[in-house]
Amino acid sequence: MDDKLMLMIPGPTPVPEQVLLAMTKHPIGHRSGDFSKIMAEVTENLKWLHQTQNDVLILAASGTGAMEAGIINFLSPGDRVLALHNGKFGERWVEVAKAYGLNVDTVSAPWGEALDPEQVRQKLEADTQKEIKAVILTHSETSTGVINDLETINRHVKAHGALIMVDAVTSLGAANVPIDAWGLDVVASGSQKGYMIPPGLAFVSVSAKAWEAYKTATLPKFYLDLGKYRKDAAKNSTPFTPPVNLFFGLQAALRMLKAEGLENIFARHQRLMNATRAAVQALNLPLFAAEGISSPAITAVAPTQVEAEQVRSVMRKRFDIALAGGQDHLKGKIFRIGHLGFVGDRDLLSAIAALEATLQELGYENFTPGAGVTAAAKAIAKS
Amino acid sequence: MDDKLMLMIPGPTPVPEQVLLAMTKHPIGHRSGDFSKIMAEVTENLKWLHQTQNDVLILAASGTGAMEAGIINFLSPGDRVLALHNGKFGERWVEVAKAYGLNVDTVSAPWGEALDPEQVRQKLEADTQKEIKAVILTHSETSTGVINDLETINRHVKAHGALIMVDAVTSLGAANVPIDAWGLDVVASGSQKGYMIPPGLAFVSVSAKAWEAYKTATLPKFYLDLGKYRKDAAKNSTPFTPPVNLFFGLQAALRMLKAEGLENIFARHQRLMNATRAAVQALNLPLFAAEGISSPAITAVAPTQVEAEQVRSVMRKRFDIALAGGQDHLKGKIFRIGHLGFVGDRDLLSAIAALEATLQELGYENFTPGAGVTAAAKAIAKS
Repeated sequence: MDDKLMLMIPGPTPVPEQVLLAMTKHPIGHRSGDFSKIMAEVTENLKWLHQTQNDVLILAASGTGAMEAGIINFLSPGDRVLALHNGKFGERWVEVAKAYGLNVDTVSAPWGEALDPEQVRQKLEADTQKEIKAVILTHSETSTGVINDLETINRHVKAHGALIMVDAVTSLGAANVPIDAWGLDVVASGSQKGYMIPPGLAFVSVSAKAWEAYKTATLPKFYLDLGKYRKDAAKNSTPFTPPVNLFFGLQAALRMLKAEGLENIFARHQRLMNATRAAVQALNLPLFAAEGISSPAITAVAPTQVEAEQVRSVMRKRFDIALAGGQDHLKGKIFRIGHLGFVGDRDLLSAIAALEATLQELGYENFTPGAGVTAAAKAIAKS
Repeated sequence: MDDKLMLMIPGPTPVPEQVLLAMTKHPIGHRSGDFSKIMAEVTENLKWLHQTQNDVLILAASGTGAMEAGIINFLSPGDRVLALHNGKFGERWVEVAKAYGLNVDTVSAPWGEALDPEQVRQKLEADTQKEIKAVILTHSETSTGVINDLETINRHVKAHGALIMVDAVTSLGAANVPIDAWGLDVVASGSQKGYMIPPGLAFVSVSAKAWEAYKTATLPKFYLDLGKYRKDAAKNSTPFTPPVNLFFGLQAALRMLKAEGLENIFARHQRLMNATRAAVQALNLPLFAAEGISSPAITAVAPTQVEAEQVRSVMRKRFDIALAGGQDHLKGKIFRIGHLGFVGDRDLLSAIAALEATLQELGYENFTPGAGVTAAAKAIAKS
């Protein structure tokens, strides 16, 4: 049943029918008045979603492209940056920074644990010469299902004065990221996550303070030069040919998100996380991220009495549900249930029911049949 | 009649229904076996379209992103390059090269004229120390409708030994670009042109000689690092999340192109160009590009007795046909008729008929009514 595929991976996420249908419209010229109208509308709605009056720029790229833009536009070769990492994506930004010849200092935590804001504070306080120009981190670490305490870390960064550059790829549109209230300088995200549209678009919000740094930043750039995007966005245009059909999808998706409302969106993701975690615990499977540091976008499970890859395989073959595996050294050790974007309570109950059936098929019997679904239902009812 | 829009601009170009419908499929996971199969198929078909056994890599970017990747992956800061330009896009590659600190030498021709291969030969022969590492040029100059003599220029570059880097954004899939037969090192193109799919994907083919240069090239890169794309393409995968729905479209479009056949595709574009030029001449409107240097992708017209922008405006409002205007200093001086991608003889006859009606509406009467359509029909019948 090819067409029954249900995506429960952390991206691409399920796409609503009306978004898919919006994308079937014939392309329009990107230098037309019709496109300008779309650009104006989506830009305004992106600002709403980002809770900001900062510029929110749209790139034809993956989330990595947006995050790279967020880093390279505001720095110069040799600049010292503090990169915080506790998973695959945090480590990627260290690679990006090194690829551009930045002087990278780090604070890290093991995969599956959260960054310690206190270590960040100490590192920043020790920098009395204010040499650190930027602090780079991943908010929701997609590889582990851990969410970092961005609010506290940001407070320490603010006390220091460096720019803060946030990979919010799986948190934006799933968790609260109040850019203006917190004063976040650079926030990057991607379309195939909370936005409910296929991959191909990425977003970067940029604060006035970051634009100030842009003026003297000398790292080379052209396609990812955010100054070009800003200049053209002011005229409701783009510097390079934009993926117009994905813009049609973006327009439809943002209208849906706005109709749902930020509070409801965040509550829904919180509820999905609670239900997933309650179910996994009721099935006596180990959660990879501890209570209090779990991402509302994705839950990682580290089974010991059953093979993670076998769980994924049966879920895919028998029930047409795609789960994500572990990355790098976690390959084969965990499976990850994505529950961000266009995911509702029914989807989660389906996934848990299928997970129970899968576990039984694999001979794992360390749970009371029905316990997972019951726990998920209870968690959903409570919230 | 919003939905009757007919795109006769040089990109986005019209998209076939089956490509649009392919894109409405729900996204699939990009780390799945199903995606690998698509990746394998489209990569093989891209090599067919590129007439090459070189790697053809797929990026989530505009054509500019692909061309930038084609330049920066094979060079180091301070490297001397020879950039040839005779229009907006040729000039853009000069900007890219300068943004990355390359030492840029140029050969240019006025907008609307072709590059002189002889000047290129002289410049390269004068470089007895072989300091020039790469020659960068635009094959079909979208801004003017001029096609450069890539075959001859390439022969001079081969005699010198530098890498040749070609912007084939509006020529690939419209004109013959036999990459292996000519030995072209780097060729960049974009999805919204001859490929008949919406914008959002871009392509770069890379020769073994260019990969050799890659090994020692030190310009900074990460998202546009083609080595990463090559490594993952070998496993039918991508380094960053690919726009899976655009891949669905790419798969469908490449099948259509393959069924049509390269010879037929090139002949069709040649025929559309001949018909357009014959019609424009029959209407006594000045062609911007001279005979022999005209692009099979796009025809620019430089009217003197009628306003170019008025022609575009009436064509759009009365007949739902989008034509492109002039860029930079040609704004208001020319209009451009795109005839690449999913464009047939009937489309062209429609456009010419509408153009005649538009000219009449604007009070331009310097032609025999029906002469444009008659000339186009005759040109179509001949070829």
